[in-house]
Amino acid sequence: MAAFITFEGGEGVGKSTQAQALADRLTRQGYKTLVTREPGGTPFGEAMRSALLAHADLETLTERLVFAAARHEHVERVISPALQAGMVVICDRFIDSTRVYQGHDPADAFARTLEARSIAGHLPDLTLILDLPVDLALARVAARGAMNRFDANAQATHEARRTAFLGLASAEPERCHVLDAAQTSTAVSEAVWALVSALLVAKSSGSPQVNPQSPEDDLF
Amino acid sequence: MAAFITFEGGEGVGKSTQAQALADRLTRQGYKTLVTREPGGTPFGEAMRSALLAHADLETLTERLVFAAARHEHVERVISPALQAGMVVICDRFIDSTRVYQGHDPADAFARTLEARSIAGHLPDLTLILDLPVDLALARVAARGAMNRFDANAQATHEARRTAFLGLASAEPERCHVLDAAQTSTAVSEAVWALVSALLVAKSSGSPQVNPQSPEDDLF
Repeated sequence: MAAFITFEGGEGVGKSTQAQALADRLTRQGYKTLVTREPGGTPFGEAMRSALLAHADLETLTERLVFAAARHEHVERVISPALQAGMVVICDRFIDSTRVYQGHDPADAFARTLEARSIAGHLPDLTLILDLPVDLALARVAARGAMNRFDANAQATHEARRTAFLGLASAEPERCHVLDAAQTSTAVSEAVWALVSALLVAKSSGSPQVNPQSPEDDLF
Repeated sequence: MAAFITFEGGEGVGKSTQAQALADRLTRQGYKTLVTREPGGTPFGEAMRSALLAHADLETLTERLVFAAARHEHVERVISPALQAGMVVICDRFIDSTRVYQGHDPADAFARTLEARSIAGHLPDLTLILDLPVDLALARVAARGAMNRFDANAQATHEARRTAFLGLASAEPERCHVLDAAQTSTAVSEAVWALVSALLVAKSSGSPQVNPQSPEDDLF
């Protein structure tokens, strides 16, 4: 049962924790799973991640192109083969983070084409956007002592990103679902599971309503 | 007198030697010059260069995007400021290498837009394509003990690249000039100088025939 699920949201909302919890639950139920992340996901992608962290203050287009490059490699070499092998692929950040961090203008045809080329048809089946008030998220990041250049931004920037993630969810309600990350981790995991199990049921029954860009849609 | 000059051609044709010789001659004549190279040219670009060398067998689109990212940073942070400061910028490889190594399809609108966005209007005023029979070029590369993954390709690949460079020159005869790199280094330098001095004269007299995408063309 191949499925492609992404976790999105700002720093400190619990993406990697929830991604791993979901993978553990799926594994216990007998699914083959793969947990991966962006930027990164391949040796080349990890090199790009390091380069981005080491070189602050890059041009916005430079960052966008590097993320697209790392993503393309990740999709072609890791995500696509895993899906073809019938795995549930869970990715910590994907296209929506690029849209939020490097900017999103639906009228920018170049940015849209860049995204489409980079993912080569692999739009997520389900995107879980973990939403948390910025002060709570920053407190969590500070508590784990993990501030890096992706974290070290002003409150207003984080607020703008939170708003942008919610805007993306509004624009693609079938793919993107917002979850209240202020709940306990267990409660968030249950909310994740409700959506994932619904996806897997829909996929196993061949429902066309999931993943509007999947090949099945050619029937409609 | 700002001018942007690029050297292009396969491995072993003498690009970096000629780029430095030109810079030395310009400096002796009182021009402010900058010699730079791609991939590289900025600390971030050098990191991209290392990453490309360390990760063989990347997807073609991945490579194209990384080169575009490094180029954009190079143009915005190094080349454009130097031109604005009135320098003659000499770059060892630029867009034509991408066209040859990652492929060139004039009908591929995405690739054309990617190139245009990455250079942000900075098309070279003059591109010097150093042309050498492949067996001579490979002998030079082997002699300097500098084979890397960009060099370690079959003869047929090098032949195809040589043909591609010549094709680019045919397509843009005002910008691109082919020089016979089988001549002595001094003879090549003289041929380079003839073209560069003509460019500088044309620029100082405001001739519109040089650099068809320069702002002066807005007059016509």
